[in-house]
Amino acid sequence: MTEHSFYMERAIQLAKRGTGFTNPNPLVGAVIVKDHRIIGEGWHARYGDLHAERNALKNCTEDPAGATMYVTLEPCCHHGKQPPCTEALVESGIRRVYIGSRDFNPLVFGKGVQYLEEHGIEVIPDFLREACDKLNPIFFRYIGTKMPYTILKYAMTADGKIACAGGASKWVTGEAARAHVQQTRKRVAAICVGIGTVLADDPLLTCRCENPSQPVRVVLDTRLRIPMESRLVQTAKEVPVIVFCYAPDKDKKAALEAAGVTVLEAKLLPKEELDELFMRLGEFQLSKEELNGRHISLRNCLEQLGQRGLDSVLIEGGATIHAAALQENCCDLVQVYVAPKLFGGDGLSPIGGMGITTPDKAVLLSEPTITRLGQDLLLEYTRKEQF
Amino acid sequence: MTEHSFYMERAIQLAKRGTGFTNPNPLVGAVIVKDHRIIGEGWHARYGDLHAERNALKNCTEDPAGATMYVTLEPCCHHGKQPPCTEALVESGIRRVYIGSRDFNPLVFGKGVQYLEEHGIEVIPDFLREACDKLNPIFFRYIGTKMPYTILKYAMTADGKIACAGGASKWVTGEAARAHVQQTRKRVAAICVGIGTVLADDPLLTCRCENPSQPVRVVLDTRLRIPMESRLVQTAKEVPVIVFCYAPDKDKKAALEAAGVTVLEAKLLPKEELDELFMRLGEFQLSKEELNGRHISLRNCLEQLGQRGLDSVLIEGGATIHAAALQENCCDLVQVYVAPKLFGGDGLSPIGGMGITTPDKAVLLSEPTITRLGQDLLLEYTRKEQF
Repeated sequence: MTEHSFYMERAIQLAKRGTGFTNPNPLVGAVIVKDHRIIGEGWHARYGDLHAERNALKNCTEDPAGATMYVTLEPCCHHGKQPPCTEALVESGIRRVYIGSRDFNPLVFGKGVQYLEEHGIEVIPDFLREACDKLNPIFFRYIGTKMPYTILKYAMTADGKIACAGGASKWVTGEAARAHVQQTRKRVAAICVGIGTVLADDPLLTCRCENPSQPVRVVLDTRLRIPMESRLVQTAKEVPVIVFCYAPDKDKKAALEAAGVTVLEAKLLPKEELDELFMRLGEFQLSKEELNGRHISLRNCLEQLGQRGLDSVLIEGGATIHAAALQENCCDLVQVYVAPKLFGGDGLSPIGGMGITTPDKAVLLSEPTITRLGQDLLLEYTRKEQF
Repeated sequence: MTEHSFYMERAIQLAKRGTGFTNPNPLVGAVIVKDHRIIGEGWHARYGDLHAERNALKNCTEDPAGATMYVTLEPCCHHGKQPPCTEALVESGIRRVYIGSRDFNPLVFGKGVQYLEEHGIEVIPDFLREACDKLNPIFFRYIGTKMPYTILKYAMTADGKIACAGGASKWVTGEAARAHVQQTRKRVAAICVGIGTVLADDPLLTCRCENPSQPVRVVLDTRLRIPMESRLVQTAKEVPVIVFCYAPDKDKKAALEAAGVTVLEAKLLPKEELDELFMRLGEFQLSKEELNGRHISLRNCLEQLGQRGLDSVLIEGGATIHAAALQENCCDLVQVYVAPKLFGGDGLSPIGGMGITTPDKAVLLSEPTITRLGQDLLLEYTRKEQF
């Protein structure tokens, strides 16, 4: 490892300290080095707080004039919640900047580098870029599309079952894997489940790790069946709950809102082309009977969450909402926990819904990354472009 | 790596050259070293041929007197197909022997070492034993119990499906994974499927790799439904086929035997304790109507295969026979190929049958070893002792 790589790796480590608190901002770390010594370190700790570069400058133990900065993301050059970092760098007398990721925010992209160079600072861009990009898959997805980065997660046995035939599923995986799920909950802005999961398990869906950040809890509930006495509704004033539905009953909606739940209407998933046409024209309204067996569009719900600034969603199940994520093509990452056990029989399968009819129509994923968690494995697949 | 490890590793590599041809004998390799030079190498190449030690002595380029031998398995000291290797070692003037695995064959265990020491040869036992033991999981299983080493194998998607809802399954995995299955077929003495798989796919079940050894093909077929025109029956004179059944129709049995098929009767799997009692007393015979929905015992079939000298069986499916392997507790290794794709819907699950009702009753497996095969993964689990 070269000296430069060492400092950038340090900046990457610092960046991770903001995990769970910077959304929708990215994780960023910065290190300032003078005469082969680190004289200042900083990271973006929380949305709205100082950026990593300014924190590093603030923490300098001596004058940064003439020093080198290593920063995991291109410094911003626009006025957001904070004044531009590029100006601070120029004022500080920093002579050289190693930059990891590019900032695809159109307000920044390339302009940060340009500003620095115009002000006499030497810039080495794309330095350990791949490692820096990995800090912020959520940010890079969201900034370009305003669609949340969506993670599909399930835990299954080595014979592909998420529960026994009767539905019992506590537990498929061991403690290390379940703790890892809590870490993922901490990283995301929202957790999403289908109403089936709420009715079956009455989950709380909070993050139970140390120093948690609480994601918004989201339920897809076409016919607004969520019970008033469910734990989600009962705790809605402490941790936000959003329920998506279609043409809701006014009284139920009002009662939920009084309990602190945000009730939003979503578009119905079109069944056929004609449906789609009517929906686009806004001429589509179904009676309760017609609604039977149909459900709202997951993609539309995700779009609405994105518009509300939620940059990432963890879809925790069940099998129906997982199927919707595939069918509506909104899934960036598939997390499969595999336990070293076999259930056999008619256990439940992780993805339900329609399914495909021949293997060549399968949804294709990348080669997985593999993490061992106790006895269990975590296989993480990104979707392939053609998907 | 020490010099001694280097030579034993070489012996391990040589041993592997016999893969597929030594059953039910183990793979064994031997290296003879004098003055830091290899002067002879050998391996057990084929059942009935010379043992590794004798081959190494035969291949010596100079007098082995005073040399050191590295051999992956304790040399035999009894008269089998070949005279005892221990005698050959003593005659050759070999001064020292590094031994990897112990031979659990009761005719050999410890006696080989004893004989050598009594004749003035220095013995270093258990050297790189773990690596040497890995050469012969089949041998170590079979020698102790006369039950074949049994491998359960299936290929599934990342959402646990072995086929689409309609049954289409060509292909779940890619070329590298399918080629790997051929290598496993080469390693085993028999391949076993249920009659359901024969009726659905009409498989040939031969080994299609380079330099193949053809395993015996076995079908579990309680009611002897295998079609005379199936590819298995049609090719039974070229590659052996064994069909296990219960109380077979005499004409069908005779026709199959005329076609070259070996038809064997197996015990029925007891349904209840009373069944079991009657079976033990040999007073159990069911009419065709009573037989409906019942099937023969996989364990009994495996016992019979073991008695015929078949030391290893690859169970290739379908879901019913996989379930039997779990239920009857006869499965040493579970090979799960996982393809980076999703089928969704009501695709078929790898293990059918009864299944368990609560997760704490799950069949427990070891931590898996992981092999990447192209885009696919191979997860290999051994069963835990409590299973």
